[in-house]
Amino acid sequence: MNAMNASRYPVISMQEAWEQVAVAIRPLPVVTRPLDTLLGHVLAEDLVAHENMPPFPASAMDGYAVVAADRAEERVVIGEQDAGIRQPFHVQPGTAVRIMTGAPLPDGADAVVPFEQAMEREGRVRVPASVKPGAFVRPAGQDIATGDLVLAKGTLLGAPEIGLLATVGRTEALVYPQPTVAVMATGDELVPPGQTPGPGQIRDSNSYALAAAVQTLGYTARRIGPVTDTEQALRQAIQEAVAGADMVLTSGGVSMGTRDLIKPILEELGTVHFGRVAIKPGKPLTFATVQGVPVFGLPGFPVSSLVCFENFVRPALRRMAGYRQIRRPEQLVRMSHAVRHTPDRTEFQRAIVIQRDGEYWAEITGNQVSGRLLSLVGANALLTIPAGVGDVAAGESVNAIFINQPEAS
Amino acid sequence: MNAMNASRYPVISMQEAWEQVAVAIRPLPVVTRPLDTLLGHVLAEDLVAHENMPPFPASAMDGYAVVAADRAEERVVIGEQDAGIRQPFHVQPGTAVRIMTGAPLPDGADAVVPFEQAMEREGRVRVPASVKPGAFVRPAGQDIATGDLVLAKGTLLGAPEIGLLATVGRTEALVYPQPTVAVMATGDELVPPGQTPGPGQIRDSNSYALAAAVQTLGYTARRIGPVTDTEQALRQAIQEAVAGADMVLTSGGVSMGTRDLIKPILEELGTVHFGRVAIKPGKPLTFATVQGVPVFGLPGFPVSSLVCFENFVRPALRRMAGYRQIRRPEQLVRMSHAVRHTPDRTEFQRAIVIQRDGEYWAEITGNQVSGRLLSLVGANALLTIPAGVGDVAAGESVNAIFINQPEAS
Repeated sequence: MNAMNASRYPVISMQEAWEQVAVAIRPLPVVTRPLDTLLGHVLAEDLVAHENMPPFPASAMDGYAVVAADRAEERVVIGEQDAGIRQPFHVQPGTAVRIMTGAPLPDGADAVVPFEQAMEREGRVRVPASVKPGAFVRPAGQDIATGDLVLAKGTLLGAPEIGLLATVGRTEALVYPQPTVAVMATGDELVPPGQTPGPGQIRDSNSYALAAAVQTLGYTARRIGPVTDTEQALRQAIQEAVAGADMVLTSGGVSMGTRDLIKPILEELGTVHFGRVAIKPGKPLTFATVQGVPVFGLPGFPVSSLVCFENFVRPALRRMAGYRQIRRPEQLVRMSHAVRHTPDRTEFQRAIVIQRDGEYWAEITGNQVSGRLLSLVGANALLTIPAGVGDVAAGESVNAIFINQPEAS
Repeated sequence: MNAMNASRYPVISMQEAWEQVAVAIRPLPVVTRPLDTLLGHVLAEDLVAHENMPPFPASAMDGYAVVAADRAEERVVIGEQDAGIRQPFHVQPGTAVRIMTGAPLPDGADAVVPFEQAMEREGRVRVPASVKPGAFVRPAGQDIATGDLVLAKGTLLGAPEIGLLATVGRTEALVYPQPTVAVMATGDELVPPGQTPGPGQIRDSNSYALAAAVQTLGYTARRIGPVTDTEQALRQAIQEAVAGADMVLTSGGVSMGTRDLIKPILEELGTVHFGRVAIKPGKPLTFATVQGVPVFGLPGFPVSSLVCFENFVRPALRRMAGYRQIRRPEQLVRMSHAVRHTPDRTEFQRAIVIQRDGEYWAEITGNQVSGRLLSLVGANALLTIPAGVGDVAAGESVNAIFINQPEAS
């Protein structure tokens, strides 16, 4: 083999490759953002309550506020307390106040009798003989007490957490920002989807699929290109991408061909940490940093680029967004059929996993060649067949990463 | 009990309530949308391939295009074929063409020898003695063949599906639109989160939490209010909301109090299908249609409104967005501890479910009162304890609905 044909980059293991990414990636600097925009962010502060919630003893039902120990057969209804402005009622034995859910309990009252258990007629109400003190009353601080840690730093903000922020009066919070990702398509053979490819050409699909993968995480993607395969065009595109994004993804241009210019340009502009990884699909996966910005050189085959996205880019983006748990949970599943595997690389096969008799069973989604995006359609799992093991027999167990919520469409 | 205190609305079962919603809700009229905006939509057409992919036999590796049956010891390299414009090479025995991944196979060649297995020197290349016809060649149509059903109607468009649309040259597709939801906070007791509540007042949190729940599904939410508790203000707000959204959510104002005005106004403007459901939390849940637009009157307690969202609004929104599978999968889990339950209603308890020794075990997230949003923080499941059964003992099984991806933050 002559010099031209040997890659300068050693093939490193999946584990080594991830370790190099992990060293280069860190959470983005925290920012304060308004309440309306916080959904999906990771909280970067401890949220402590400075007030009770409810702030006052409140009725849990529509009904009558009474004195529990009162033994009167009928009580005079001295007025009505809405949720809202507190009225100056004072409930004494022999009296009651009509009260609405959430309304502050009037002075003197210590229990609520729901409408369904009461009968009001001509300004007087009858209630059951025995009423327990505190019945249907939400004590002050029942939901949240002053000093409670409401949300801990590191909490992902979903709908209930957004509600809690509003409840304690926060109109903004300190969070990790969500990364912006530049997605660059490269290759002279690429034409936009709306164009009919000439001889030797194909349509750009990777920049659309990768941008969608970024957006699936809730983050912003900026598509760039297709960029033509000249050093100058690629260098300029990478420099612009790095200047305007928290991460850059390129696709294609990282194999061993004479036109695979991405690696030399990344070497020139920054540091290439690795250029080949013992995984299938995805062996030419490249990782660099340019001016502190992580750049993934993803392979050009559509499946390879999405599988590399799942295994490297997604956890890296989650770390940047402040997640502590950056990988999906794994699950041992049994193979419904035999799978061929050569032990030189960690292989990721696309599969449909179903539950049967309390066990998980996996079936591969047809031809697994790297160009066949259809192998990802309907797949809900990536099976990991590690380097070092050979073929897997039917009934044997392998590790599965669930890549879709099981409920999709 | 006198007339004022009796609800006009019978308490119906969860099942009956859902059936009434299901009758009133249908998928939104399909629309054509551009490629860049399709992520997360459900496809409303069958996508059939009109071309092969790859469109030509292509190299799967960087290497040399050769005639497999050629027995020459060395072959003359007559040129280089990039991915991109097809060159007019004709490979014959004794010759080879340097070729890049994805490039069209030159005429005459029927196999590719990867760089790693070849040695080129002074314009001549040596390759292994035995080369299999078709080696490292991707035949035309290997990934997608003309006439293939690429994506079926009803497919949820994720990243691979977006890539496939681009691959087959689609710049737009027919999809179900994503619903826009108006979220209305009602109640004189409400102040915006940035304001300090006066006596008897609390901050509006529900409109923020419910808007976030809508956005979590990927749909647009418009917050309205807080609207004051007068007939006129509420009527106007509901009319405006209905005119500008595919669904309206109100929160609060649906109990039995004299100020619970939502139901009468919905009766006046449209049809109230039910006004009470045998569920806990969420008994006052109300469902109406106004000018064909579904309106959910959600209870005012924060947990009640989010649990009703999960059980009624989310599946309704998914149906409107074209999903066929509108409910989350359920899973039998075992209780780590005893749970009290009164058989009159279906109860939804917030829980953390973990896997232990191959079984799922559930633990309730503290006090389950309807105001305590904290009971949803960290919860990954809603346990369903159906009407008709009593207390559940430790070790017994109940149904769980997983409400968060298990991986959150």
